[in-house]
Amino acid sequence: MPDANFRVRATSESAARVLVKARNFTMIVDEPPNLGGEDKGANPVEYVLAALAGCLNVVGHLVADEMGFKINRLEIDVYGPLNPARLFGKSYEDRAGYKEITAEMKVDTDADEETLEEWAKSVEDRCPVSDNLGNPTPVRVLAKEFEKV
Amino acid sequence: MPDANFRVRATSESAARVLVKARNFTMIVDEPPNLGGEDKGANPVEYVLAALAGCLNVVGHLVADEMGFKINRLEIDVYGPLNPARLFGKSYEDRAGYKEITAEMKVDTDADEETLEEWAKSVEDRCPVSDNLGNPTPVRVLAKEFEKV
Repeated sequence: MPDANFRVRATSESAARVLVKARNFTMIVDEPPNLGGEDKGANPVEYVLAALAGCLNVVGHLVADEMGFKINRLEIDVYGPLNPARLFGKSYEDRAGYKEITAEMKVDTDADEETLEEWAKSVEDRCPVSDNLGNPTPVRVLAKEFEKV
Repeated sequence: MPDANFRVRATSESAARVLVKARNFTMIVDEPPNLGGEDKGANPVEYVLAALAGCLNVVGHLVADEMGFKINRLEIDVYGPLNPARLFGKSYEDRAGYKEITAEMKVDTDADEETLEEWAKSVEDRCPVSDNLGNPTPVRVLAKEFEKV
């Protein structure tokens, strides 16, 4: 299959908030007041968890279909700890991001426990978001000035 | 600083869509029809890019403050290529996620080019989301059945 290209464009609305356009969708990413924002949307690291939950749902249903069992109901709790010290420039001991991320997939299904374990492994392997979090991805951050008129 | 814990809870609404709750916020993650959804929200890998954009905005403003220059305007384009073959179980040659991610930060500022380059490096280092994408993060995907009544 050929590569698919995804893209978003974000406009800064404040030091803590962006308006993000992805195709015809608009997302607001902000911070709560204790992290310097006005709490008009979920914050960046919550967006990461939402992305993982959405991905696990899609891949979870695909893989269950392939394995021949039905998901009647699915809830996914995603959480992780993060030390904001590096973000704030207070200490460089800990990494900036989540130290680990856990996704608990609660399923209503007739599949047995062994099948569910095999399913979870395959889902984790094939989910783009868990791949990008679990394994290194080259990230380039480029800065340039707007073209001067 | 102590670790902060972040958490979301997602409820599957279809094989492609989840409703995600993060504190008082609700996010809808879906897929376009060609990826099996009904296009009621941005898709999981677009959420990843939105998370990165939001994070770069927050850290970008923090670091600019520290470095003593002002950001008058900021736009961030984030994009990357991804081969969906592994997700669909058609080929395991490529990784599941983005092969690379580029974030172009366009800034209106009086800082010079050298300062902006130093800024971009520091922002990338201190942004939780670019850390979680650029470096490996332990991800655990657990599956269990809902408690039977």
